[in-house]
Amino acid sequence: MNVMILPSSAFDDTTAIIDEVGQLTHIKTVLKADVGDTLKIGKLGDKMGVGQIVHIDDNGCILHNVRLDADPPPKLGVTVVLALPRPKVLRRLIMDMTSFGVHHIILINSVRTDKSYWASPLLNRLDEFILEGLQQGVDSIPPTITLAKRFKPFVQDELPHLITGKSALVFHPYANTSFTSFVSKNPLPKIIIIGAEGGFVPYEIDLLASVGVQSVNMGERILRTESAVNAVLGRWV
Amino acid sequence: MNVMILPSSAFDDTTAIIDEVGQLTHIKTVLKADVGDTLKIGKLGDKMGVGQIVHIDDNGCILHNVRLDADPPPKLGVTVVLALPRPKVLRRLIMDMTSFGVHHIILINSVRTDKSYWASPLLNRLDEFILEGLQQGVDSIPPTITLAKRFKPFVQDELPHLITGKSALVFHPYANTSFTSFVSKNPLPKIIIIGAEGGFVPYEIDLLASVGVQSVNMGERILRTESAVNAVLGRWV
Repeated sequence: MNVMILPSSAFDDTTAIIDEVGQLTHIKTVLKADVGDTLKIGKLGDKMGVGQIVHIDDNGCILHNVRLDADPPPKLGVTVVLALPRPKVLRRLIMDMTSFGVHHIILINSVRTDKSYWASPLLNRLDEFILEGLQQGVDSIPPTITLAKRFKPFVQDELPHLITGKSALVFHPYANTSFTSFVSKNPLPKIIIIGAEGGFVPYEIDLLASVGVQSVNMGERILRTESAVNAVLGRWV
Repeated sequence: MNVMILPSSAFDDTTAIIDEVGQLTHIKTVLKADVGDTLKIGKLGDKMGVGQIVHIDDNGCILHNVRLDADPPPKLGVTVVLALPRPKVLRRLIMDMTSFGVHHIILINSVRTDKSYWASPLLNRLDEFILEGLQQGVDSIPPTITLAKRFKPFVQDELPHLITGKSALVFHPYANTSFTSFVSKNPLPKIIIIGAEGGFVPYEIDLLASVGVQSVNMGERILRTESAVNAVLGRWV
């Protein structure tokens, strides 16, 4: 937690209250901050800045002299379309994409996405994972997250609108062109599409190609989804 | 597990035996393979290939017609020097660096590495994490792992020999040059040095600079160590 992001309801003029358990614990046990100390904070969906602790106990921490005058860092300008991964890795993936500054995350269905993943209670906790990502990456503007539970209608009806005038890549181990080779000759793409463990099946790759999505590979080694997403996003840093 | 890597003791001429519990479970529950099916295997430290199941029960799986005629993929040609991370993330970091094909991993001490990390029982399980990484990345040659528990002697006495004639970078949030800018003008470095959560302290950066290590940043956002390592290694893919 490199900044604490608070909801707008936590602010009142130049005062703010922190009463979320995780944040309070962080202040006390990691930052070991006390009355008089200054904390780095941000308002969710708004600016970032600082506030000074005037009171802290087990129920909350009151900040005065709150100034929110810093703009959050720019987003990467990339949309990530990701086949819904195993619930176990969903939290870290959402957190990492948020920390990197992805501005729009679209979770889609795919042949290799187990149907049970869509019933995971973790899907109700995306806002929590986003908050973790913002607090890690020092950002206050959450990405947009869209769920697209049907692959074909998404690719045929929605993706073309997102793609118009932009380049879009899908990562596929059997593609002929490597991502490295692509980015050596082209600007970074605006839309990247990444499969679940096992990747997309040929039918899905063909459907994506039919709306203008080019396939690239990430080398001959097979990476975990998390590794692959981070490895790809590293190009934007 | 995209290939099963077996110790050389598992092989006898064109026969091999798989009796490791994790691998047996994978064969039965994920691959759902049975007598007659062909498995992708590799010999640890040697070549990769296939074998055909002639018998399988709860105690083991016997392969005949074993052919080991495929070379593993080339290594990345990069040494990663990593401040020993929290035990919780050590497994995934070792696994990911191995999957990517890092040929030498050096775990070092740093001011921000908690002393207790060196006493973690997970440090006795590095071979296991390497095996997981090889089986994920489809490789049979383990990386070398070196532990350097003392930062200053490592940097002053050992690092200069590793660096001679090569470029070395340390990732530091306050560096003036970005990694992207560096790699746009230079070949990929042969040695990369990455801190634990919180990065290196100025004294460590100065000591590294004194032996010729250049600092670069990964942008203004702060990434988890795991994310940062994967984001950096993605340049080699």
